[in-house]
Amino acid sequence: MAHQTAAILVIGNEVLSGRTREANAYYAAGKFFERGCKLGEVAIIPDEADAIISTLNRLREKFDAVITSGGIGPTHDDITMESIAAAFDVGLIEHNFIVQAMTEHYGEDGLNEGRRRMTRVPQGAKLIRCEKTIAPGARISNVYILAGVPYIFESQLDSILDQFGDTPYQRVEIEVELAESIFANQLTSIQEQFDDVEIGSYPGRCGPNPCGKICLSGQDETRLNEATRSVNAMLEKTTSR
Amino acid sequence: MAHQTAAILVIGNEVLSGRTREANAYYAAGKFFERGCKLGEVAIIPDEADAIISTLNRLREKFDAVITSGGIGPTHDDITMESIAAAFDVGLIEHNFIVQAMTEHYGEDGLNEGRRRMTRVPQGAKLIRCEKTIAPGARISNVYILAGVPYIFESQLDSILDQFGDTPYQRVEIEVELAESIFANQLTSIQEQFDDVEIGSYPGRCGPNPCGKICLSGQDETRLNEATRSVNAMLEKTTSR
Repeated sequence: MAHQTAAILVIGNEVLSGRTREANAYYAAGKFFERGCKLGEVAIIPDEADAIISTLNRLREKFDAVITSGGIGPTHDDITMESIAAAFDVGLIEHNFIVQAMTEHYGEDGLNEGRRRMTRVPQGAKLIRCEKTIAPGARISNVYILAGVPYIFESQLDSILDQFGDTPYQRVEIEVELAESIFANQLTSIQEQFDDVEIGSYPGRCGPNPCGKICLSGQDETRLNEATRSVNAMLEKTTSR
Repeated sequence: MAHQTAAILVIGNEVLSGRTREANAYYAAGKFFERGCKLGEVAIIPDEADAIISTLNRLREKFDAVITSGGIGPTHDDITMESIAAAFDVGLIEHNFIVQAMTEHYGEDGLNEGRRRMTRVPQGAKLIRCEKTIAPGARISNVYILAGVPYIFESQLDSILDQFGDTPYQRVEIEVELAESIFANQLTSIQEQFDDVEIGSYPGRCGPNPCGKICLSGQDETRLNEATRSVNAMLEKTTSR
């Protein structure tokens, strides 16, 4: 059965130091929404074994699946594979298929120590291959270990997306030219009537006047449309007052 | 004393559903780096009381300070203030100063139920005011409760930044036209010599040839320069081989 809930664990000092704007969780969030898998948490943590182990163990208990991003390259700061092996209390093994693929690509002498690091996956893991790179990602239990480089992450994620969600979410956005506080109470009543539709209100900034968006999403199109009609009717009444 | 470590707790379904690309943690990450406060974790969670309470309690134990973003408006999905009061096991009170400021701004009759919600803060909290909005953020213990709307978040964060860090981090980036696996081992040796400098390697994509960046950061300029020289010397040797 497809995963109904998921978390994303972004491993990377470059994001925490403000050097790099997070992109992979953002990409995955959009894809999960389209597929109807609920993204329950994104955690961004440093390249540190303790943080990886404890965060992964927390998330994989709580959600159907966890996607990790980053830390699977050949350098000293790439410690995701060994940390995840430790989280599962299994060994880290050189995977024959990767050794073979890398040897074919780089030649017999080309498998230096850095590349050798990239042949290691937690014992029992299955490979996640994609066209963009020789070194694959890996899956162990409900944890999918993907690359941090965005174009590789996206390609690897796309290759496993069919395991996430089954009933797509749909979204309706309604533009509003009122201060939130004017309609907050009525919106609460509508939310109470539609517990299967998620209703959010997001104020924006459009010159001196209040403006914003009310955003509705859900998996049942009929209910989503009903809720949308209720919100529109409420806004018309409020505006004409 | 200024906070040396911090975490950011982003509260918002709009980020988890892929609707909105996270911006506030990214802004704060850059500011903390400049000030020398180590950002240890970013957690993005839904507008759900249980998630807010458990995540906040975990983070405020682990880090010197926690910044929250989002969920302090007037609508039903704005439950940050009440959830944080619950996390601290204190009451939620109407703050006189906010009631007064809102009454002045909106008039005696203007304080509707939505706006009244925005006058509530956890008991014992101090206000975080900024020029961009009447409704302030709040601080309780080591938790700073800020808005989700980016221009307000930024203004509120700027007003408290002097409480974070004291010795700025500096960063050096070195462009590399080699595959990471070629220099991974030598880079490991350099990292081992400089445990007070953080060295990361970030491969990129520049046509058919390998390329990327080696990124060094630290708080001691002399050590940072020494490490940079070591990396440059190593790269020259490797390239000329």
